[in-house]
Amino acid sequence: MKIALAQLNFHIGNFAENTNKIIDYIHQGILEKADLVVFPELAVCGYPPRDFLEFDDFISRCDEALQEIASHCQGIAAIVGSPSFNPDLKGKDLFNSAVFMTDGKIQSLRHKTLLPNYDIFDEYRYFEPNKEFNIIEYKGQRIALTICEDLWDIQDDPMYTINPMDELMSFNPDLMINIAASPFHRHQARIRQQIMLDNVTRYNLPLFYVNHVGAQTELIFDGGSMVLSPDGFIAGQLSFFKEDFQIFELENVINCKESLSVQLRNPDEAVYEALVSGIRNYFEKLGFGKAILGLSGGIDSAIVMVLAAEAIGPENVLGVLMPSQFSSDHSVNDALKLAEIIGCPAKVIPIEEAYHSFDSLLKPHFENLPFSIAEENIQARIRAVILMGLSNKFGHILLNTSNKSEAAVGYGTLYGDMCGGLSVIGDLYKVEVYELARFINRNMEIIPDNIITKPPSAELRPDQKDSDSLPDYEILDKVLFQYIENRKGPRELAEMGFEKTMVDRILKLVNTSEYKRYQTPPILRVSSKAFGMGRRMPIVAKYLS
Amino acid sequence: MKIALAQLNFHIGNFAENTNKIIDYIHQGILEKADLVVFPELAVCGYPPRDFLEFDDFISRCDEALQEIASHCQGIAAIVGSPSFNPDLKGKDLFNSAVFMTDGKIQSLRHKTLLPNYDIFDEYRYFEPNKEFNIIEYKGQRIALTICEDLWDIQDDPMYTINPMDELMSFNPDLMINIAASPFHRHQARIRQQIMLDNVTRYNLPLFYVNHVGAQTELIFDGGSMVLSPDGFIAGQLSFFKEDFQIFELENVINCKESLSVQLRNPDEAVYEALVSGIRNYFEKLGFGKAILGLSGGIDSAIVMVLAAEAIGPENVLGVLMPSQFSSDHSVNDALKLAEIIGCPAKVIPIEEAYHSFDSLLKPHFENLPFSIAEENIQARIRAVILMGLSNKFGHILLNTSNKSEAAVGYGTLYGDMCGGLSVIGDLYKVEVYELARFINRNMEIIPDNIITKPPSAELRPDQKDSDSLPDYEILDKVLFQYIENRKGPRELAEMGFEKTMVDRILKLVNTSEYKRYQTPPILRVSSKAFGMGRRMPIVAKYLS
Repeated sequence: MKIALAQLNFHIGNFAENTNKIIDYIHQGILEKADLVVFPELAVCGYPPRDFLEFDDFISRCDEALQEIASHCQGIAAIVGSPSFNPDLKGKDLFNSAVFMTDGKIQSLRHKTLLPNYDIFDEYRYFEPNKEFNIIEYKGQRIALTICEDLWDIQDDPMYTINPMDELMSFNPDLMINIAASPFHRHQARIRQQIMLDNVTRYNLPLFYVNHVGAQTELIFDGGSMVLSPDGFIAGQLSFFKEDFQIFELENVINCKESLSVQLRNPDEAVYEALVSGIRNYFEKLGFGKAILGLSGGIDSAIVMVLAAEAIGPENVLGVLMPSQFSSDHSVNDALKLAEIIGCPAKVIPIEEAYHSFDSLLKPHFENLPFSIAEENIQARIRAVILMGLSNKFGHILLNTSNKSEAAVGYGTLYGDMCGGLSVIGDLYKVEVYELARFINRNMEIIPDNIITKPPSAELRPDQKDSDSLPDYEILDKVLFQYIENRKGPRELAEMGFEKTMVDRILKLVNTSEYKRYQTPPILRVSSKAFGMGRRMPIVAKYLS
Repeated sequence: MKIALAQLNFHIGNFAENTNKIIDYIHQGILEKADLVVFPELAVCGYPPRDFLEFDDFISRCDEALQEIASHCQGIAAIVGSPSFNPDLKGKDLFNSAVFMTDGKIQSLRHKTLLPNYDIFDEYRYFEPNKEFNIIEYKGQRIALTICEDLWDIQDDPMYTINPMDELMSFNPDLMINIAASPFHRHQARIRQQIMLDNVTRYNLPLFYVNHVGAQTELIFDGGSMVLSPDGFIAGQLSFFKEDFQIFELENVINCKESLSVQLRNPDEAVYEALVSGIRNYFEKLGFGKAILGLSGGIDSAIVMVLAAEAIGPENVLGVLMPSQFSSDHSVNDALKLAEIIGCPAKVIPIEEAYHSFDSLLKPHFENLPFSIAEENIQARIRAVILMGLSNKFGHILLNTSNKSEAAVGYGTLYGDMCGGLSVIGDLYKVEVYELARFINRNMEIIPDNIITKPPSAELRPDQKDSDSLPDYEILDKVLFQYIENRKGPRELAEMGFEKTMVDRILKLVNTSEYKRYQTPPILRVSSKAFGMGRRMPIVAKYLS
């Protein structure tokens, strides 16, 4: 039997486009004499559809799409992910289903058993978990068909009380097929490969695994679909970060005795490609072509400009330099040099005059109080007014340039430098920003060295340095990582040797900045715990704060 | 047996304060000879703790608090809501528990079976559902102890496949106790009372029901705890919108043959009290005392000023008028009159000069394009810079004044009038804003009539009216309600008789404004479907858009 994996980039709710794409690849399968084409989880509507799933109209459109797709399955079968109505009165109204179709119509459905409901996942919000197990028989093969998370709970400390593959083994399957929506993070490709290898060796069955590719707002899908032999060899590997369609002969997979050489990207390279994909898909799927960003001469905006230029073309990325009386000469020069190297247009719009205008407007109301954070923020907010003015006038999307360390401790101005339609590096700690800069410069100086080597500064008051207000990033980022990614509390951090006063101060900054992060743009997710949908914190609270 | 209900206002993560409050009421119970004091769901840590639950440190502090509380249960028992560790390796790490304590120590735990995971609820994110049932025996009484949602699934189309009270009935209980965290919306008090009445009549048992009171960021808890007889009479009713502690003799409850006269507030009155409570708790729990808001002379900012003045005192609410060249004289006069009536301080800071400063700064870059949304937004953003400048200088919290109709269709300026720490009326459609204004003015003219009667306008270009860009609010709000609250799609709306072109345009506006709402402040929730945590939509999508 010849099985094709169709690793595609879907557009949430764009039924016409998604349906046509699926049908095109079914025809491709027919052309290449495949017996079965497998598409990813919720392929029909795109993943994650979120609360669109609560609209009957949305589910009906999925049904209509499935009917149309099924009518094209002549002489071939397809497995397509889709939500489906739960016919039982009891339980939630929907299943997350894999729809098996052939001979021009839908033959049967299998439903997802394990519904991830942690981090960025909300599946139990919508779906009833499957409780009935059965295989699919097709062309003499017995297929154990599961959906994403169904294969992920095989560690010693299971999150669920049932294991769907254990259940399916009683039906003596010949192969496993898993349709997935497994989003990227820095280490996910390696983890995913290991989990899938653990499955084939545990069940001694071949596995056909197909994932999404492309980004959906903050979530980036890296593809990396794979075919594994029962003995744990990699018999097939689809591309990372692009659409792919490959056909495999089941017999060859079963007998495969040597792994393909699969070179997983190093984390910096993977993050670079992920962020580029995240930007590109955000623009393409929203129908925008041009980006704007504030260029400070610092490393954060430099990196964002490089990534945006790669994603949508340097000619479409406008850098705006907005020096104030506190900006150093090198800031302007470094930023202009960067734009020139990359080939992006740049504008210089000094903000001193606008600042003085606000200064004289507010002076009578500021009661002779000394220069403070208020005046610092006014500068950042003037810049936002300028950037958004240009964005509104010409239809650019403003790219946000905050990093994760700043976002964590609230070192940024709400409605100022925290503005933007998309946060590009908001999931990179400052030390990771530097790592990425070195990766970008690995062959030639794209980001001017001076931008990488000078001490970071917000330049909102004379001779300001980040290190005036914050611990060194080397230490800060370690504490933040333990608190945010690993959820270590103050007592555990003390045991790890971090200094208590510093830890208490950092955790307090993180928790009292929740109100700021609540209003930030969506952040491209490249870690296992990004700010945004995957980290839900109370604003009004008093814990470690 | 004498049972006390302690309907209290907890502060999330503030273990010292919550623990002391619980212990104080246990002592109050001892003083008043109660046998048992019942506290709400997750009382120890406050509700909803959200992802703090993923920190072992947070759960350990809950444990420590429970130990301390238990040590005070001498000659009395208490039931206290708390998260607890799941000892089983399989399944999620936590339960949502009701902890029964007496004789100075924890005696046993009961866990929540039905974990709400819709709208603003995320409980399956954290908790393993209970699967073992048993009653609690205390002083000869057999108590069926459940937690909130456990009693809510009694309709004909159940959301869950198990019903915990049905299970508990096999143990022959004498009474039901339910500890809850049931947030307010416009009709919730009536619905809640009906659900609880349905339970007592179905099981023929008395019910002691205790809820939270007070607000937690966007969620407002209205209290309204109650005691019901097996025959469906209201034997006890605790206050709405304030802390309350009442003791009931079980025998009297069982024999109660006449309901207390419980006058539920009409929806406008309830919404008024809810919003006041929401503002007050936001300020108190964050430790802030002063609010600032932009006063446009329109009805939205007028209502917000009235509510804020009621919540934190008129002397603590600063209204700032920021007229531009497009502002009408009546706007300034109406706004000043309002501030004077309420007793709030007000400032007038004209923005024409600042606008001209940006105009001349950006003119060379705007390439002689005509006046557009860009210039309109610049005015709104200048106002935000002024308001945030004052807020930063003096430590005010900026109150947002957007309404739900505007938020729905994106009729507002991001980083302009969409700014603020808290959105006060972002869950009120424009027609509901008018209703609330009439409620406020029911006895005297607090909001000047002219503010209520003039046509709504953003005043960002000459002679602008909302009705230039939007359908009349009477119709717009009906369509929005059907789409947002009732999740009706375009085909259903057409069947209801709404005009197709208009519906398509409105739904498209709603869906393409998702990126704006992503960055708005938390919105006090007073409907069954508010923007924010309870409505999760993709930004990048193409459904009805």
